Amino acid sequence: MAASKHRNKTSQDDHRIAVSVIGLGSMGAALAGAFLDAGHPTTVWNRTTAKAAPLVARGATHVRDIEAAVAASPLVIACLTTYDATLQVLAPAASALAGRTLVTLNSGTPANARGLAEWATRHDLRFLDGAVKNVPDAVGKPDTLLLYSGDKAVFDEHQAVLKVLGGDTVHLGTEPDLAKLYEMAVGGTLLPALLGFFQGAALVTSRGKSASTLVPYTVKWLQMICAVLPSLAEEIDTGDYSKPASSLGLFHEGIPYDHEIGAEGNLDVSWLEPMHDLLREAVARGHGEHSISALVELLRKPATAA
Amino acid sequence: MAASKHRNKTSQDDHRIAVSVIGLGSMGAALAGAFLDAGHPTTVWNRTTAKAAPLVARGATHVRDIEAAVAASPLVIACLTTYDATLQVLAPAASALAGRTLVTLNSGTPANARGLAEWATRHDLRFLDGAVKNVPDAVGKPDTLLLYSGDKAVFDEHQAVLKVLGGDTVHLGTEPDLAKLYEMAVGGTLLPALLGFFQGAALVTSRGKSASTLVPYTVKWLQMICAVLPSLAEEIDTGDYSKPASSLGLFHEGIPYDHEIGAEGNLDVSWLEPMHDLLREAVARGHGEHSISALVELLRKPATAA
Repeated sequence: MAASKHRNKTSQDDHRIAVSVIGLGSMGAALAGAFLDAGHPTTVWNRTTAKAAPLVARGATHVRDIEAAVAASPLVIACLTTYDATLQVLAPAASALAGRTLVTLNSGTPANARGLAEWATRHDLRFLDGAVKNVPDAVGKPDTLLLYSGDKAVFDEHQAVLKVLGGDTVHLGTEPDLAKLYEMAVGGTLLPALLGFFQGAALVTSRGKSASTLVPYTVKWLQMICAVLPSLAEEIDTGDYSKPASSLGLFHEGIPYDHEIGAEGNLDVSWLEPMHDLLREAVARGHGEHSISALVELLRKPATAA
Repeated sequence: MAASKHRNKTSQDDHRIAVSVIGLGSMGAALAGAFLDAGHPTTVWNRTTAKAAPLVARGATHVRDIEAAVAASPLVIACLTTYDATLQVLAPAASALAGRTLVTLNSGTPANARGLAEWATRHDLRFLDGAVKNVPDAVGKPDTLLLYSGDKAVFDEHQAVLKVLGGDTVHLGTEPDLAKLYEMAVGGTLLPALLGFFQGAALVTSRGKSASTLVPYTVKWLQMICAVLPSLAEEIDTGDYSKPASSLGLFHEGIPYDHEIGAEGNLDVSWLEPMHDLLREAVARGHGEHSISALVELLRKPATAA
């Protein structure tokens, strides 16, 4: 009971801790706005100061000096364009950051995140890297996903505050590059899925139908794909591809059908060729009766000597 | 009021009309089962007769002769493996089919559907082609999508009966190949989207994380993609790519980021190369500041002389 009371108290205190937001692009401004809405004393910094005005009108404190901006809060959220930009801006404030928590929410690679984590360790500051795969408008909503990685104790301490930015706030692990790694793993689906839709749109518009008529059916289809991902992931995790809901051979047999798309719509479908090659190679390697998820084996390169 | 009463009466009558289901693979059996559950007198036919037994136990009439099977009902649903198989099975029953309605629900191409429509016209039967992009278990559910194309009057007459197979029953247009065309347009997203997920799975498993941990984030991501499809479709329909939510140039800048996926996970990401080439070509053609949906222009081949 006492422990529970203590947790509640901590959580309530968290809701009030001061936060500094460094970088007021559209995403940074949305982050600062969410903290303001939740009643956090919020300090903001931006290289060009005009962007601070709307936030100051909502109660933020605008500080022009980066050291002072950082010193204003125990929790510092940096949302600049890149990790390089982040380092450039924060370097003069490194000693002011010592002992504080820095959370980066910019785009970049896992290698970038590892680099910043090393810098943070060197300067004795607590560090979490995060990823918001969403639009600024989504910030602060209960369903909005934010991925974090790095020191678990730091995440636990600030989890309640971080949830102000999105209700679906996840700690992926202690390795600081995991947020960027998962962001990358998730994001790789975007261009292929969009091209699949554009190809479909090109096909139906070739017959005088609008692309908009295709949307509800594609949405249902993507939802169906979502529904099968857990079992495909399970197959990948167990390495057991022998009980397929959809066999690789069936996809392989469908290759001429993809070419038919090109013929029907007078379309260039050559972007599908390497995928067909993967299917052919997988069948040649004996995966014909296996689940389509066995394709993962072909994406993995043989380990190279260390 | 009288009109409304009349519609109700027709609709009620429809629920009782006799249906013949030709072909009892897992999908055909599911279709026949749905008609039985809805109280329709249901006649079934299959080349191998053993598959009829469970349906007979549920009240179906099993008829071994294809002509008699067809003659038993005004509405005939054929669910064989291909259009060729359908033609082969139905050819001896062509005169028995005259004046009846044939609905085909098998896989195949728009060209196949056009071929069967010609055959149907030649033999004076009413014809609809349909597509079920789903698993047999989904048959009969209120949310299940079935696409139809062909004679609108035939569809209107049988719509209530067809809804027994799935509540989301759609007539796409009078051209008989549209169901297959849309099925093709929708389905082209599957392999690219799955490969995107497999690549992500290969990436996180390279770090000892399970592929299953990736599923919830990928599902959210695909839902986000679903949410942007209407505006992308709108851009394609208007041909106005000038107000992008996500610019093609941004995707183009992301190409090295895709290569980073390969480097991080020791993965073969070469299946993305033609997509990168499309981005490069689109930028070269001046689409850098345009929406990513402008890629549709590159998938369209120049019209050839007739």
